[in-house]
Amino acid sequence: MSKRLDSETTEQEVVALLGQDDDNRLRAVLRDLHPADVADILDSLEDIEAKLRIFAVLDPDTASETIRNVHEQTQGLLVERLSDARISAVIERLDSDDATDLLSELPEDRRKLLLDRASPETSRDVQELLTYAEDTAGGIMKTEVAAVREVATVGEVTDYIRRHSDDFHDVHNVFVTDPDNRLLGLVPLRKLLLAADDTGVGVIMETETVAVGVDMDQEEVAHLAEKYDLLSLPVVDDQKRLVGRITIDDIVDVIEEEATEDMLALAGVGHEPLAPLGALETMRSRFPWLGLNLLTATAGAATIALFEETIREVAIAAGLMTIVASQGGNAGVQTMTLIVRGLALGELRPAQAWRILGGECLAALGNGVLLGALSGLIVYLWRGNLALSLVLSSAMVINLVIAAVVGSLVPLGFKVLRIDPAISSSVLVITTTDILGFFVFLGLLTMVV
Amino acid sequence: MSKRLDSETTEQEVVALLGQDDDNRLRAVLRDLHPADVADILDSLEDIEAKLRIFAVLDPDTASETIRNVHEQTQGLLVERLSDARISAVIERLDSDDATDLLSELPEDRRKLLLDRASPETSRDVQELLTYAEDTAGGIMKTEVAAVREVATVGEVTDYIRRHSDDFHDVHNVFVTDPDNRLLGLVPLRKLLLAADDTGVGVIMETETVAVGVDMDQEEVAHLAEKYDLLSLPVVDDQKRLVGRITIDDIVDVIEEEATEDMLALAGVGHEPLAPLGALETMRSRFPWLGLNLLTATAGAATIALFEETIREVAIAAGLMTIVASQGGNAGVQTMTLIVRGLALGELRPAQAWRILGGECLAALGNGVLLGALSGLIVYLWRGNLALSLVLSSAMVINLVIAAVVGSLVPLGFKVLRIDPAISSSVLVITTTDILGFFVFLGLLTMVV
Repeated sequence: MSKRLDSETTEQEVVALLGQDDDNRLRAVLRDLHPADVADILDSLEDIEAKLRIFAVLDPDTASETIRNVHEQTQGLLVERLSDARISAVIERLDSDDATDLLSELPEDRRKLLLDRASPETSRDVQELLTYAEDTAGGIMKTEVAAVREVATVGEVTDYIRRHSDDFHDVHNVFVTDPDNRLLGLVPLRKLLLAADDTGVGVIMETETVAVGVDMDQEEVAHLAEKYDLLSLPVVDDQKRLVGRITIDDIVDVIEEEATEDMLALAGVGHEPLAPLGALETMRSRFPWLGLNLLTATAGAATIALFEETIREVAIAAGLMTIVASQGGNAGVQTMTLIVRGLALGELRPAQAWRILGGECLAALGNGVLLGALSGLIVYLWRGNLALSLVLSSAMVINLVIAAVVGSLVPLGFKVLRIDPAISSSVLVITTTDILGFFVFLGLLTMVV
Repeated sequence: MSKRLDSETTEQEVVALLGQDDDNRLRAVLRDLHPADVADILDSLEDIEAKLRIFAVLDPDTASETIRNVHEQTQGLLVERLSDARISAVIERLDSDDATDLLSELPEDRRKLLLDRASPETSRDVQELLTYAEDTAGGIMKTEVAAVREVATVGEVTDYIRRHSDDFHDVHNVFVTDPDNRLLGLVPLRKLLLAADDTGVGVIMETETVAVGVDMDQEEVAHLAEKYDLLSLPVVDDQKRLVGRITIDDIVDVIEEEATEDMLALAGVGHEPLAPLGALETMRSRFPWLGLNLLTATAGAATIALFEETIREVAIAAGLMTIVASQGGNAGVQTMTLIVRGLALGELRPAQAWRILGGECLAALGNGVLLGALSGLIVYLWRGNLALSLVLSSAMVINLVIAAVVGSLVPLGFKVLRIDPAISSSVLVITTTDILGFFVFLGLLTMVV
């Protein structure tokens, strides 16, 4: 094996070499590494000067493969400091989608300057791709497509791929188009390999192709690729003309990105990168959710304030009400998370709402009775106050059922309203179970004492 | 296009046909659908009899492609009711990995019976695959590999693929092995297509291949495939002999599965399918977390009980303490979720712990001061009690910093201890911010009043 793939040991070796002044040895060690491993090293180094020194000794091909593989944050740091000449060399070697991602990191005037320097083909492709929104099919596609006419023979198509082998290094399918560039079908590489050279591609092409529009949301694109097990998807404009393709490696990125976004949204974090940020940026990213939570928590406190008399009389109620709210919040988040994820993966549909709701409510009733009895028993043993125990048990049952209802209906409702269920569900679910939990427990208690 | 891919309208059509007694029309409509769309319809139907009726009219090839695409739950329902002959026919048409998944749904005696009926090849492959743990490379690989010797020519390899076109319908690479079946390298289809027929594969093979061991965790396999942009990964046994391959569609499934698992684990849901379960199963799945939460919430209530005197005196404290706990819990969950996801995707490493912790604490201090001042102001305007306001503000700052510390260190610590950070982090983080939130606020207040 000519490239070393054991990144752990080599990473230490590279870090050790950074302490010395021997660029040739550094270059020699890096030459043996896979660009994805060089990218890992660049990502893990804290010092931008160290990143730049490593990047400087890479040959242009490795440099472009490496910069494609680093995290967005590292990419931003690098391009800010690299010379125009270096970036130009990298861009010419990248596929159009990766070149566009790189250039979109730059301020507009520098981007313009670099596009002026670029080859006409690169400049045209990147400028086209820059017009699409980042999270659409157009935003993740590349323009390098192998497109042939129906009458072409397998031999001709093979020659064509060979002539453009740089553009088609990751070709999975050859697309067949009509003279207006409208998509007719596709031929997978395997079929090309197995067919005789003089076979017409029109004869062996598959016409059951899924094509996506440039404006389709990337999440929907990923669903289609996954559902139909596609390695590459043709992208068409509103005239059904072939304008690009999306490859499976980009689909994988979309799938991870969407899962990350949902997970962070459920926890109330916005579009924050996973790499450590500066304290000020972290603060800014977290503040909106905490500010919103301050308002809802204050509403909860105001609810509690309605029962000040009761609390003065039965001070332990202050502790017990938090059990009711906490159980409700947890149960609600369980239900909500399952539904948000089920909706995102297409395994649940809003049409199943009643069935989901029924099951959740029954389960909540069951667990409510069990947990209510258990907590009632604990409190009875602790304080010997039967009325207090019964109030706690009843409030628990009621709040768990409330949790099941809001945990189910909130995300399903957002989905029906075409609002992303991941974004606003948790605040609504937790606020409801908190406030109603306090209200039910303290309300019942007030009636009893 | 011979297959219709517009699933929405056809689904309604199929449902309408189920109400009639015309199997031929049903068969005709289904024949025009992609098996992945038939699978969607089977998943969405509530009634098992309806699922069976649709499945019964599918031809054997479509039936096997369809059953491969339905959710695990639907698959379980179907195989339970299908005849042995029907399952046998399906199994012979499936790839070894899918056949194994299907058979693993069945009780052992029925599985044995079906394996006795199966072709020797299928029986051998499935029995081998059943020996591997579900979440390892062996558990997701298929045994159908295109393996050739170094001396084979491109022409010979092409013939070989043609002869086994059923097994190699999704071939991306041809693997090159030595006489002991040890992996030497691989040749992507594209290289085969572009090379002359008399070229030896040893000349054009790529030797920088990533091979994974049968026991490697599926999550690690997915990371490798993603990092090196691989469409298929060779799997080797402990003697480095080639035993199978993992294809990108299975990698995509692993990526989604792992993200789902983490998301559910963070919300305290165990291995629960996303499709609606019966109430009893739902109850059982949710109970452990709620039971654990009852204990921690009771510990919180006991903490509050330490300050009964203070609460009796300043009853509004019962409301205000929940603001402190709630803000801390939310901030802790924000930090924790980012770190859990960052660790899962390999974008964060435990080695960065101090840098992360520093940034989080500073950000928490900043937000704590802002939110503390804001909440103090609200309470001052509301109650006109300056001491109470100051206690609230101070407790908020302290609890947000506590949240930053536990939100960072808990998942990082679990990672270092090789415990899945997604599973136990939230309960620890929320419990700590709740209990310490109550304690700090009520403790400070007790000193003041």
